[in-house]
Amino acid sequence: MTLFGLDETRVSELIAGVRGGMPVDALATAGEVFARAAWSGIAEPGDGTAGLLVASLGASVALTAILEAWSPVRIGALVRDVLADEPGAPDVVFATSPSSDHTEADADTSAELEQALDAGLQRWRPRLNSGDVIRSLQQAARVDARLLLATDTLWPAAIDDLEQHAPLALWWRGVPGALAALPNSIALVGARAATGYGEHIAMEASAGLVDRGFAVVSGAAYGIDGMAHRAALASDGMTLAFLAGGVDRFYPSGHDSLLTRIVAAGAVISELPCGAAPTKWRFLQRNRLIAAASAATIVLEAGWRSGSLNTAGHASALGRPLGAVPGPITSPTSAGCHRLIREFAAVCVTNPTEMAELVGERSIQVPLDFCDTDAGPGPIPRTSDQVRVFDALSGRTPRTVADLSRRAGLSTSAVRGALGGLDLDGAAQEREAGWVRRA
Amino acid sequence: MTLFGLDETRVSELIAGVRGGMPVDALATAGEVFARAAWSGIAEPGDGTAGLLVASLGASVALTAILEAWSPVRIGALVRDVLADEPGAPDVVFATSPSSDHTEADADTSAELEQALDAGLQRWRPRLNSGDVIRSLQQAARVDARLLLATDTLWPAAIDDLEQHAPLALWWRGVPGALAALPNSIALVGARAATGYGEHIAMEASAGLVDRGFAVVSGAAYGIDGMAHRAALASDGMTLAFLAGGVDRFYPSGHDSLLTRIVAAGAVISELPCGAAPTKWRFLQRNRLIAAASAATIVLEAGWRSGSLNTAGHASALGRPLGAVPGPITSPTSAGCHRLIREFAAVCVTNPTEMAELVGERSIQVPLDFCDTDAGPGPIPRTSDQVRVFDALSGRTPRTVADLSRRAGLSTSAVRGALGGLDLDGAAQEREAGWVRRA
Repeated sequence: MTLFGLDETRVSELIAGVRGGMPVDALATAGEVFARAAWSGIAEPGDGTAGLLVASLGASVALTAILEAWSPVRIGALVRDVLADEPGAPDVVFATSPSSDHTEADADTSAELEQALDAGLQRWRPRLNSGDVIRSLQQAARVDARLLLATDTLWPAAIDDLEQHAPLALWWRGVPGALAALPNSIALVGARAATGYGEHIAMEASAGLVDRGFAVVSGAAYGIDGMAHRAALASDGMTLAFLAGGVDRFYPSGHDSLLTRIVAAGAVISELPCGAAPTKWRFLQRNRLIAAASAATIVLEAGWRSGSLNTAGHASALGRPLGAVPGPITSPTSAGCHRLIREFAAVCVTNPTEMAELVGERSIQVPLDFCDTDAGPGPIPRTSDQVRVFDALSGRTPRTVADLSRRAGLSTSAVRGALGGLDLDGAAQEREAGWVRRA
Repeated sequence: MTLFGLDETRVSELIAGVRGGMPVDALATAGEVFARAAWSGIAEPGDGTAGLLVASLGASVALTAILEAWSPVRIGALVRDVLADEPGAPDVVFATSPSSDHTEADADTSAELEQALDAGLQRWRPRLNSGDVIRSLQQAARVDARLLLATDTLWPAAIDDLEQHAPLALWWRGVPGALAALPNSIALVGARAATGYGEHIAMEASAGLVDRGFAVVSGAAYGIDGMAHRAALASDGMTLAFLAGGVDRFYPSGHDSLLTRIVAAGAVISELPCGAAPTKWRFLQRNRLIAAASAATIVLEAGWRSGSLNTAGHASALGRPLGAVPGPITSPTSAGCHRLIREFAAVCVTNPTEMAELVGERSIQVPLDFCDTDAGPGPIPRTSDQVRVFDALSGRTPRTVADLSRRAGLSTSAVRGALGGLDLDGAAQEREAGWVRRA
């Protein structure tokens, strides 16, 4: 089989640079790997029809289909055959099973599937260019980027929760341990235009989560994202950045050295091939990867319409725990966090322990009845009788049990019982003329 | 019938001073009013056994019972007769129906009721003193305080939700319109040791709620409470303060002039008779009145163990809407608010509109999908195709539809459709050589 007229030797040469040192799964032949690389540049992130097509037929057959201009009817028939014959069968190539609750690929009927494929073919054909694929593979090899497929051991399984909207492949640079840390990672995201408060809490949150053994995931943007990565690195922690463009071109350029350090100690990941520019669309789609890959998402500081709310929306839609850090209501950069807590059931988190609890057990609630007043008498909780007798005691004038009974509105026996406790506690003392309060 | 050996003429004289201008209900005879006044000083606030006894037998029979030292067995039999014969009957004197889910007065059996009454008698007897009652009535008349009973029109009906723990009477000073405003009131409570942030938000909250037609209820303490009252007065709004001691002795003394102003324009209320000192127990019980009397409770600033959390607990137990205002997580005085949001399902409220919504309809939620990035292009929401085509346009180099199709990953017809929208929007312009993005 040839793709773009390239023979298998040439294809193997090209992919060797981006698959070095990693065992190629039996099903992931050189042609399949090459076709996945090609698809990652042909379909825009989140293209559900491409996801369905590639999951059903495999990447290389799907690529052949559009290279050879098969009709939507023919492709649709093949896809339906797979869906009908092998629902959840073990020999389906990818774990990502197509779901039927999404946009264009809602292929309830043959006609709808063919329509979706027809629209897809019109999107994909203008991008069929062997030169682009070859250049992106060569550039990836040059910067030591690796191509990761869903069949690889290091593939973050949580990303498959995106179903047909899951990425067709991931490109990454860094240390393998970083990818392995994703199941135990927390995403810290927030505004680019962070305040001093936001940067402070990002630093505390990131360092605190690293101390608790979590990897920190973010988007490498200015402001909160950058601070989260930096604090994780400073704590010798693991940190991963998902980018909206190729992993060969760091964005924003002001974070060039930060991203270089992340590559050295963690990982930089993208679903787009090398050379791809970050676009607004790709930032929004990149956010779904941050939400899906991490065990919980926490928004640290965000304006009313911050992009980090989009990440929060993905986390929520995926059923991932979602936290938000409150701030002054007078600060517009906390308005998005309050909105998440108020309207979208985000958990209010105020320290790393509470953040870690998002993915673990909750601490035990203390009933509000036990709350003391500001002027609480001390660490030992008192009974209500003790509170009332203590109220009735004077620090100077000794008072009899009868007097205390009247003042506290308690029976004399209740007063005596309470005085016993207060005495033990050191809060009351008996003198010749009666009881006094002790400071 | 005589109480404390006083004849009806003397009793009528004494109560005239605290019932002036108000119609005395047929059921609330002079003796009954006098006995209620006495009971408000005999039982400590929240005494459920006293509540049950007075609700069953009426205040004057209940008072006679303890004055004449009837046995718990005899009193218990009378109470049980009422409970058995007249459950919810219209001729039960007080609307407060005894419930059976509370502490001491859980009189499931005759023995338990008798035990509760026996304990109650031991608490009440030391306080049986006609001099105290007479002095409190005379002092009330002197400061122009009024006695309010559950049968009065101005009685705040919401307080009856406290059932047998409802106050036996209320003492108040101020303008009658203030009591009438309680059904449309919101309680603003918080730390005494408020920060500048807390005082600022208390002022904004109070003024904003007054603007929306609400009365502001609080506890007249230093810090948040005081600021809430002051801002309401400054906005010519209605404000009410519930006190933990008698309404003749203002507490804290530093708020003497503030409380005098509240009396002139609103109301100061207490369940304790004139002369009664505020005690810690009474502060905690006073909090239940704030929670019960207002339509919602909002905690503005509170430490981890603040007394205002006690008020919040009462509001929550009564099923009243509960709000909390977030603040910096670095501020210990906001820790209690965050705790309420995090652990006790308080609604996160950040402005007076959201506070008002606690007692009315919620605003419509905007789905998170519509959230834009920080660098959002403007107020008109764009379709995802438009976002992608806009991304693909250049501000300088004109691009053809075919080029845009490849760059955006969209079919040429989708690109044309998106360009139409962007053109109308003024975001794209067609030139001879193709389309350009407009600033």
